[in-house]
Amino acid sequence: MAADEPKNLSFVLEGIKKVKFEDRPVPVLKDAHDVLVNVRYTGICGSDVHYWDHGSIGPFVLTEPMVLGHESSGVVTEIGPAVKSLKVGDRVALEPGICCRRCEPCKSGKYNLCVDMVFAATPPYDGTLAKYYVLPEDFCYKLPSAMDLKDGALMEPLGVAVHITRQAEVKPGDTVVVFGAGPVGLLCCAASRAFGAIKIISVDIQPERLDFAKKYAATGVFLPEKASAVENAERLRSGHGLGRGADVVIDASGAEQSVHTGIYVARPGGTYVQGGMGRDEISFPIMAACTKELNMKGSFRYNSGDYKLALELVGSGRLSVKELVTKVVAFTDAEQAFEEVKAGKGIKTLIAGVDG
Amino acid sequence: MAADEPKNLSFVLEGIKKVKFEDRPVPVLKDAHDVLVNVRYTGICGSDVHYWDHGSIGPFVLTEPMVLGHESSGVVTEIGPAVKSLKVGDRVALEPGICCRRCEPCKSGKYNLCVDMVFAATPPYDGTLAKYYVLPEDFCYKLPSAMDLKDGALMEPLGVAVHITRQAEVKPGDTVVVFGAGPVGLLCCAASRAFGAIKIISVDIQPERLDFAKKYAATGVFLPEKASAVENAERLRSGHGLGRGADVVIDASGAEQSVHTGIYVARPGGTYVQGGMGRDEISFPIMAACTKELNMKGSFRYNSGDYKLALELVGSGRLSVKELVTKVVAFTDAEQAFEEVKAGKGIKTLIAGVDG
Amino acid sequence: MAADEPKNLSFVLEGIKKVKFEDRPVPVLKDAHDVLVNVRYTGICGSDVHYWDHGSIGPFVLTEPMVLGHESSGVVTEIGPAVKSLKVGDRVALEPGICCRRCEPCKSGKYNLCVDMVFAATPPYDGTLAKYYVLPEDFCYKLPSAMDLKDGALMEPLGVAVHITRQAEVKPGDTVVVFGAGPVGLLCCAASRAFGAIKIISVDIQPERLDFAKKYAATGVFLPEKASAVENAERLRSGHGLGRGADVVIDASGAEQSVHTGIYVARPGGTYVQGGMGRDEISFPIMAACTKELNMKGSFRYNSGDYKLALELVGSGRLSVKELVTKVVAFTDAEQAFEEVKAGKGIKTLIAGVDG
Amino acid sequence: MAADEPKNLSFVLEGIKKVKFEDRPVPVLKDAHDVLVNVRYTGICGSDVHYWDHGSIGPFVLTEPMVLGHESSGVVTEIGPAVKSLKVGDRVALEPGICCRRCEPCKSGKYNLCVDMVFAATPPYDGTLAKYYVLPEDFCYKLPSAMDLKDGALMEPLGVAVHITRQAEVKPGDTVVVFGAGPVGLLCCAASRAFGAIKIISVDIQPERLDFAKKYAATGVFLPEKASAVENAERLRSGHGLGRGADVVIDASGAEQSVHTGIYVARPGGTYVQGGMGRDEISFPIMAACTKELNMKGSFRYNSGDYKLALELVGSGRLSVKELVTKVVAFTDAEQAFEEVKAGKGIKTLIAGVDG
Repeated sequence: MAADEPKNLSFVLEGIKKVKFEDRPVPVLKDAHDVLVNVRYTGICGSDVHYWDHGSIGPFVLTEPMVLGHESSGVVTEIGPAVKSLKVGDRVALEPGICCRRCEPCKSGKYNLCVDMVFAATPPYDGTLAKYYVLPEDFCYKLPSAMDLKDGALMEPLGVAVHITRQAEVKPGDTVVVFGAGPVGLLCCAASRAFGAIKIISVDIQPERLDFAKKYAATGVFLPEKASAVENAERLRSGHGLGRGADVVIDASGAEQSVHTGIYVARPGGTYVQGGMGRDEISFPIMAACTKELNMKGSFRYNSGDYKLALELVGSGRLSVKELVTKVVAFTDAEQAFEEVKAGKGIKTLIAGVDG
Repeated sequence: MAADEPKNLSFVLEGIKKVKFEDRPVPVLKDAHDVLVNVRYTGICGSDVHYWDHGSIGPFVLTEPMVLGHESSGVVTEIGPAVKSLKVGDRVALEPGICCRRCEPCKSGKYNLCVDMVFAATPPYDGTLAKYYVLPEDFCYKLPSAMDLKDGALMEPLGVAVHITRQAEVKPGDTVVVFGAGPVGLLCCAASRAFGAIKIISVDIQPERLDFAKKYAATGVFLPEKASAVENAERLRSGHGLGRGADVVIDASGAEQSVHTGIYVARPGGTYVQGGMGRDEISFPIMAACTKELNMKGSFRYNSGDYKLALELVGSGRLSVKELVTKVVAFTDAEQAFEEVKAGKGIKTLIAGVDG
Repeated sequence: MAADEPKNLSFVLEGIKKVKFEDRPVPVLKDAHDVLVNVRYTGICGSDVHYWDHGSIGPFVLTEPMVLGHESSGVVTEIGPAVKSLKVGDRVALEPGICCRRCEPCKSGKYNLCVDMVFAATPPYDGTLAKYYVLPEDFCYKLPSAMDLKDGALMEPLGVAVHITRQAEVKPGDTVVVFGAGPVGLLCCAASRAFGAIKIISVDIQPERLDFAKKYAATGVFLPEKASAVENAERLRSGHGLGRGADVVIDASGAEQSVHTGIYVARPGGTYVQGGMGRDEISFPIMAACTKELNMKGSFRYNSGDYKLALELVGSGRLSVKELVTKVVAFTDAEQAFEEVKAGKGIKTLIAGVDG
Repeated sequence: MAADEPKNLSFVLEGIKKVKFEDRPVPVLKDAHDVLVNVRYTGICGSDVHYWDHGSIGPFVLTEPMVLGHESSGVVTEIGPAVKSLKVGDRVALEPGICCRRCEPCKSGKYNLCVDMVFAATPPYDGTLAKYYVLPEDFCYKLPSAMDLKDGALMEPLGVAVHITRQAEVKPGDTVVVFGAGPVGLLCCAASRAFGAIKIISVDIQPERLDFAKKYAATGVFLPEKASAVENAERLRSGHGLGRGADVVIDASGAEQSVHTGIYVARPGGTYVQGGMGRDEISFPIMAACTKELNMKGSFRYNSGDYKLALELVGSGRLSVKELVTKVVAFTDAEQAFEEVKAGKGIKTLIAGVDG
């Protein structure tokens, strides 16, 4: 390339509420299995906003400038010599966390728990809000012809939801209660339906979100009252004909009150999955969970088969994600988009990529 | 029997700290599969003491006099016409909770979650601290010749421990940390060893209990310091070579501090089982549990196969329970024995039965 | 009732190809949980035809006259004093195998393996092709309002198919190959679809059955050629884009050639379920199964939750069974209906009941 | 090194029954995670003998000279720059199959089913019967101080046995029948015992092998008679008090008669694992397997955690492998050792390595 090139415009977080657009070198393939992707769409995630707003999430602290973004789709522009499954021009969804492939979790199918994970836009690793991004072919998923690149960017939150729903072992005929009607909660409703759940109750404190959930994927909704968790659980259970309780409870809210109501509304022997992030420590009704022999699990990102299933569900028409995209902005409007997401506007905002 | 009979001396709780010995009618067989058992030994459980001391446990409240006791062995003295597996004179361990056999949990192998459970010494149902007790043959387990009737009375707490250890899915090679070195915690250590665990760390705040645990079944012990749960977990992990954490954590203490340390010391992807009873709600490090994708389960009593395995483990010499019996008292000394158990004396006190 | 009553017209098998209509006494409730049902529709099963045609199936030999039939729906006409879940007039599907509730399989959730099973129309137990039939309330499933009594009679073969599909652990996104397009094979296709399978390939040697399968529930069909099982498997795999093979293979045919092709077409690590009955011993490609680490399972009748799920799937509109009913005959035409079923006419023939 | 070096003496199979000792170049590290190992002991496996005797196994055909051997231990002599877990001088057991780490089986924890496996002494890949062998650090397992290098060479067959036993889900209290008392069958008995099985019955047609099994790890033995499989199964079941049958059956023989007897002796709902290799197709009692709802699985090599557990079992004293080593020969006597193994002499013969 000429002296004034290469151009790899990137959206960089320098510090709390301090971002800039920077023209960085185009990344090079490091491994024979790597591909170079021209990023086309990137969704804004709550974690991106949190880093921009606070400079850290839990133990992950921004110490040097970092490109934001990790919910992306794109077009392959270069492939390494060992790449077999992709060719230049292929449209792909990006799975943005590259595992070491060698540690015990990686070799036992739980690579989301890898000891050396390189995850996009988690300090110190750069994210995907750039013109180009490099990753191994097996972390790029070719989009079926029925899916467009905007759908492709939604595969990341859908991967999260699929992983939660798998952790929850949602089975045909199950009754499922999902706390939180943000993007992940909504996608958990849709995934639960695709997994065969018969009743899917969406719970949120914002009535307009419940309206959306009802139209989108929930079979019923529940607006908690100012009452105890036991009382809300009882109202939820009796009001939706859940018998001794829900087979599965998913928390995609991270709120203490949701966790409590969720534990109380689960049936004896039921399953509870914590998908939402919130305060490190909360009050917890442990004896109710114990005597009902709940199966409780955390859910963290995604691993083997989650993206594949996300694409199959959308590609086969079992699940639709288009409804969630409420705005698409130009790459250069990224900062304003972050402001709007922080203000709670819309469901999912996408940032268009820089043309390749 | 003569006019002044039948004699079925029973140890009855009438109210808080108010007990009496009462001569009740000998129970009759209600079903063709029932057997009558002359109770020979009954262990005192923390729940017996709690009813005696407080008159209730959670939702279960004493409203009329109730016979105490549910950890018993005995000798069969009468059998119903349909009984095939037992004969008069057989020595048996009693499983003291009779399920309805018809509800969904019963028919799906989780009869401990039965909607109509009749459990000994849980209001309003009488317990086993009587001369005679009736139950169906399939809830009586014939003792192998190598086991004596005192061992038989220990099958109830061992059943609890086996159920916890099964819930924990302890596997060969696992590292296991058990919080609480009371009878159930100790038996969880022994069961974990029989399940093939390589490292079994007993944690308690009483050094003498740790001494016992070390001699009995633990491969290592840990005495928590006055420090944060994170610090204790870190000290426990590094001090016992647990790598990224323990494969399995069992809480048999019910203490908030144990729960916290337990969640922090479990490895990513590990399993945590709540076996101990304590306060209804506690503070809980939910984000640590979530991001490590812990599998967390409650454990409640026992169900299919637990007693059978308990007897096989002891009968085959894989596990010994004799060590736990620190005192045997006469039936008429039951009240004093309760006082001593409440005062924390010994590991397990047995009350001898009334001769048949 | 008067002297010339009670009338309980029954269709009785006396010997090979020897049936009669007999007016037997109306059965009485034996247990407080029993209900009396006026049978409304009964499907003819291959096993009914086999008993009629051969007088035995495997170890089960007809030695005295036996009422045929076990795929039935009906209306409750009397309830025992302990019955809570049903009332007179309720429309129900009948689960025709009553387990002992006490043996190890029963208490561990596998009551289909009960040591003392009483199964309708399996010698020496009478079946449901009678005006009345008695069974416990928990083996009667109330039909949702959206289901009619003909659907109700299909719950038995659907229960078989649901059990097979559960044994197969069909998961969302799976590719499934089902050998045999008779009623159970077709229902396995439909159940697999309801479980989230993306590709469902029906295999049969009769093209008209494949046409039906394609319209009903399969996403693709395969007609085996006169070729080796390896060749057919290869053609099936490549022709339907199954990659390294199908995630799940279900045999609902019992034919040796199907079993072979099925083992070869399963992917490494995939699951194979034997649902169809055929010759006791067949040639089997055991090394292919071994080196691919197939999970192979038998499937026998149904157990906990299968009927419940069958009703939920139909009641919620996820699965439809109406299409399978190709003929309904009057009770008194039962024998001719057996002749037609033996001749392979239609998919499922129902025999209407005797009015109550 | 000097001109007449490097010396990497290797035992090379050129064709059927045609071997030679060849001095090949010392292999070089290809990856930063690789280590170079001076091989110290190598066990002779039936598959090595089969290649030597027939030139092929199933689809794997020798087309160019190949070094034999894959059951090895050794000492690390060089490490790549990224190696952290090992240092020069460490004594290690070698896991001789390197997976691609990128395919679906690899990423889902089943790397033994990898599509691009490079397995030692499986054409076209060279084996470990050489002075030096290179492999990644995560396929080298450091020996605990209590284990010697001869034990280390046994980790490969023990890994096979551990994998079979895991596939069989042997649980505490189980009854296990193992067909075949060769090295793998014997190690399956020992592993079953370490997994908590109470009864372990070894079956073989050679009485002297049964004597060995009894002394080594079996709790009982069974010598089949000239009788049908059903009769042998019945005799085995009743003779060893197996109730309705064995919880787990492992075939480590590959013989048709064993498979039949094994299927018949398994209890309803039990588990059968095919570990032994034999004829591609055999007669198989499929209806017995179907109606008992057996869980049947193949077992192929080993994957995540198998070697680790093998070392823990031996390192902790739960299982001993020394008893199996019946002969150790010098490297240059390899061919004669192959002759003796083919003749069925001894249990396990080790070939000593060439000094480093």
